[in-house]
Amino acid sequence: MLRLSSEDIEQGYALACQTVVESDVSISVPPQEKIERRLTTDRTVAEIEVPEGYDFARSQTVRRLTLMLTPPSMDDQTDDLSRLRIGMRQQADIGEIDISLPLLRKIGAVLREDDWRVTAILESESWDKPARSARLIDLRPGHELLNEPVWGAAIDIGTTTITLWVVDLVTGKVHAQVAEYNGQISRGEDVISRIVFSAKNGGSDQLRSLVLETINALLDRACKRVKITPDQVVKASIAGNSTMMHLLLGIPATSIRLAPFITAVNHLPLLSAHEVGLAINPEGVVDCLPGIASYVGADISAGVFSSGMSNTENLTLFLDVGTNGETVLGSREWLVTCACSAGPAFEGAGVIHGMRATKGAIEEVWVNSDTFEPTFRVIGGVKPRGLCGSGLISLLSEMFITGLVDKGGNINAHLGIPRVREGEHGLEYVIVWGQDSATGEDIVITHVDIDNLLRAKAAIYAGFTILADSVGIPLEAVEQVLIAGSFGKYINVEKAVQIGLLPDMPWERFQFLGNTAIRGAYYALLDKEAREEIRAVASRMTYIELSADNTFYDAFMSALFLPHTDISRFPSVEGVMSKT
Amino acid sequence: MLRLSSEDIEQGYALACQTVVESDVSISVPPQEKIERRLTTDRTVAEIEVPEGYDFARSQTVRRLTLMLTPPSMDDQTDDLSRLRIGMRQQADIGEIDISLPLLRKIGAVLREDDWRVTAILESESWDKPARSARLIDLRPGHELLNEPVWGAAIDIGTTTITLWVVDLVTGKVHAQVAEYNGQISRGEDVISRIVFSAKNGGSDQLRSLVLETINALLDRACKRVKITPDQVVKASIAGNSTMMHLLLGIPATSIRLAPFITAVNHLPLLSAHEVGLAINPEGVVDCLPGIASYVGADISAGVFSSGMSNTENLTLFLDVGTNGETVLGSREWLVTCACSAGPAFEGAGVIHGMRATKGAIEEVWVNSDTFEPTFRVIGGVKPRGLCGSGLISLLSEMFITGLVDKGGNINAHLGIPRVREGEHGLEYVIVWGQDSATGEDIVITHVDIDNLLRAKAAIYAGFTILADSVGIPLEAVEQVLIAGSFGKYINVEKAVQIGLLPDMPWERFQFLGNTAIRGAYYALLDKEAREEIRAVASRMTYIELSADNTFYDAFMSALFLPHTDISRFPSVEGVMSKT
Repeated sequence: MLRLSSEDIEQGYALACQTVVESDVSISVPPQEKIERRLTTDRTVAEIEVPEGYDFARSQTVRRLTLMLTPPSMDDQTDDLSRLRIGMRQQADIGEIDISLPLLRKIGAVLREDDWRVTAILESESWDKPARSARLIDLRPGHELLNEPVWGAAIDIGTTTITLWVVDLVTGKVHAQVAEYNGQISRGEDVISRIVFSAKNGGSDQLRSLVLETINALLDRACKRVKITPDQVVKASIAGNSTMMHLLLGIPATSIRLAPFITAVNHLPLLSAHEVGLAINPEGVVDCLPGIASYVGADISAGVFSSGMSNTENLTLFLDVGTNGETVLGSREWLVTCACSAGPAFEGAGVIHGMRATKGAIEEVWVNSDTFEPTFRVIGGVKPRGLCGSGLISLLSEMFITGLVDKGGNINAHLGIPRVREGEHGLEYVIVWGQDSATGEDIVITHVDIDNLLRAKAAIYAGFTILADSVGIPLEAVEQVLIAGSFGKYINVEKAVQIGLLPDMPWERFQFLGNTAIRGAYYALLDKEAREEIRAVASRMTYIELSADNTFYDAFMSALFLPHTDISRFPSVEGVMSKT
Repeated sequence: MLRLSSEDIEQGYALACQTVVESDVSISVPPQEKIERRLTTDRTVAEIEVPEGYDFARSQTVRRLTLMLTPPSMDDQTDDLSRLRIGMRQQADIGEIDISLPLLRKIGAVLREDDWRVTAILESESWDKPARSARLIDLRPGHELLNEPVWGAAIDIGTTTITLWVVDLVTGKVHAQVAEYNGQISRGEDVISRIVFSAKNGGSDQLRSLVLETINALLDRACKRVKITPDQVVKASIAGNSTMMHLLLGIPATSIRLAPFITAVNHLPLLSAHEVGLAINPEGVVDCLPGIASYVGADISAGVFSSGMSNTENLTLFLDVGTNGETVLGSREWLVTCACSAGPAFEGAGVIHGMRATKGAIEEVWVNSDTFEPTFRVIGGVKPRGLCGSGLISLLSEMFITGLVDKGGNINAHLGIPRVREGEHGLEYVIVWGQDSATGEDIVITHVDIDNLLRAKAAIYAGFTILADSVGIPLEAVEQVLIAGSFGKYINVEKAVQIGLLPDMPWERFQFLGNTAIRGAYYALLDKEAREEIRAVASRMTYIELSADNTFYDAFMSALFLPHTDISRFPSVEGVMSKT
């Protein structure tokens, strides 16, 4: 069951149990930690194509200039900075350059190191304007070749996972993709507990350090792979939800948590790496992408853009299945969004044997409708330790279809099977007996767990209905459902529909896009038009605050059933149920 | 001889030796350190008038806005920054604001502290433009009154002395003037030795810390006087020579010292106080005024402007008598400048009993032409410890006029007086016998000292002639001579002319302006038009590098005599000499 990726196989990895030794071999067993890490990050690695028509010189805000300056003499005592300015004006038609004090400190030495031949890295929003002004990011001795890379990084700061790509801005090609758990997890699983922690004495600084440690370690790992140093990276674009963005920058996030739920800032100015604490070139540009509201952040603006939703004529429902359950409805014409605070149940929290989608997690369950015996698939093919989100959806759906639970989510106590028993938290169903689990303990799902899952899925589904109602369109009119989030990638649609998490519509309308936020950050990193479009998406999205919407409660209560109070909304489930 | 200033007398100080006690009195004796400090700083305190027509709202780059924002609600979830931006646009017609990360971190709390009533301090170069953009310097809860002060600081970083004024930008009034020796003195008396020191390992950081310590201590002292805290100061304008400016900012100054003598930067961008290390408001604007060349810095641009030279039709010679001997010739039409590396002889260095103009320094000498006995005046009226610059000029002139030295500067050994004797360094003249000096040692001037003084004055005078020659104008055509530098203030013109330091012309053409650099910094601090004019002065001044000018050596050699090889250039001295 241990799956090897095509990358693994290329690198010469093989499963010992399935390999025939035909001659003398030398076998290297990778350290366990390495395997686990690869398993974690594999889940986020994606083949990414350079956007069509990408042109470094035309699409980028960053440019590289090679300049040949006249050396000073007794007859020409122009100061170093003016000499550089004059060179830029004459050789690149740049009117004004903005230069920081740290760069002023090194300019004299750099200009003289290779006899007044230098390479400048500049950033500007106004390359196309007649009065060009630019900010100097780096000045290096000598002349770099046209095809030498200029490095950038795209970053997505998820509450759970941080993803970082290292990109050559010249070609647009992604050279490394890495991911790791957000170091802040140790201080709280979800955004609310992080905000609470940040308000404690020193909490904000601690959270800031933790996220920076994770990012900088990722940067280091990715740069090692590409054989560069982190300070060669001159630009970074960052996506992430609003809380992650505030915590990264040390901006108090308290108002996000308290009514009326206001962020300090949605559209951040361009920052320098040294201000942010990012270990790229200290003068490197850090572009934090714009968010929409407290619970619909830059990850969603970036995701909506990269999913193509903001540029399609088809009515689209965009869903990031995660703690916040951000949902967007619309098309190129209009966009409306809400966040339904699903809670972290589908990420394994609030469920007694819930866990993240790593090795040992049950990711799919089948229940025999006669014997109620389960079979399951475990990530990594090892003994199970618990259930991840997709496993929980799968389990709940199977339990419902087989009658192990009723439409109210109550476990059927009258089946007379040992797997259903009275536990500490009321009735529970045993999926794995202790002798077969990694921990030696029984793996169960309790009545309380099921209640939590119902509340989570009800919140998400209620979000859909509120959005649809707000624009007076029936949910069935939705032409495509885009599911974002690396978690979303592993959901079994049929089962998600069966529990009423996803609306009931033909499967071909669903698309699983994986991490749309990092793709959006990547596009924003490369292309100033993409960046502008993400800004426009963030600005034109209408945010509906559900806690201020008094129809939300009704929608939520109606969705607290399997699949829904109004079964007619789920004709396919109705069909399945009538067969059983 | 101890002089009390009118300020002293107002404060109740009296000279015990000259005061009659008429009834019971309570006498406080100020600690000695306090007296010395007052004596030092007194020498730089000046009555300064607010420039005519100064108008905070029209002349300043800094503005204060009071804003009343609509509080957020469930129906208006605009983020804090956008709310502030909207307020500024609607209430003050400001299109874009630039806001730093540290301010973003406090905006949420400040907006809420006094119920969305805030006072913003902004800085902009473009208040007059239709598309106004501004940088936010500070945001404070509540509404400040229109006449409440907004604080600024004008700073002049001299190689020897640093002067700082605290100014209310609303009225333009100077509220405190303080001065102190530049803490860098311990690492070298002149700019060259500082540059050499800065190139040593850690030297640059040390010099930067030392000058910042002095400035920040001055700021603290001045703010205490005004009863404010340093972080209430939101803008600083800084004058200083090019080396001082580089060292302040940690920009390598090495190229200033080595041919072809290039600065890293003459026109500095606006900086933030936290970048510079200035202890005013961390986001406060630091405006380092522009210099012209390695040895003609911002102190001269500011000085030329504040002296009125750049705006007069009269042909003017501007002279900063100091180590560098910066000289400017011209008027509103044109300006030509040079620095003649006079060396620090007139500041008391390179002269065996030279000292700075502090307590115990002989500042004026008279020599009896029959007995060759000297009388003198000592700063502070105490026993003498040495001679300061004005004392040296005075002494040299008296020695020359009385025949104690000849026109070549050689001491006359044939007078048969005990005050002329053979010392360690050749012939010397005793000004004070050990029993009358503060140190118990004889105070003398040696042949070597006189040579050093001759070289210093020859360099300065040669500078005048080179400038005049470069524009083909005779020196006699100069209509006014402006002498800058607090040292200049104490020179006796007659005696300075007699030794050939100053050109021979009617005394009414000389004006002593004191510290013109700090005045220039003050004008620049207040008025954006003054600031622009200083920029223009720096840009249009033609710099002549004397070491590249092969006529300089001849001019210097000719000036190595008392008063000059060509006595016809000094008709008044010729007259005096013919009488003796």
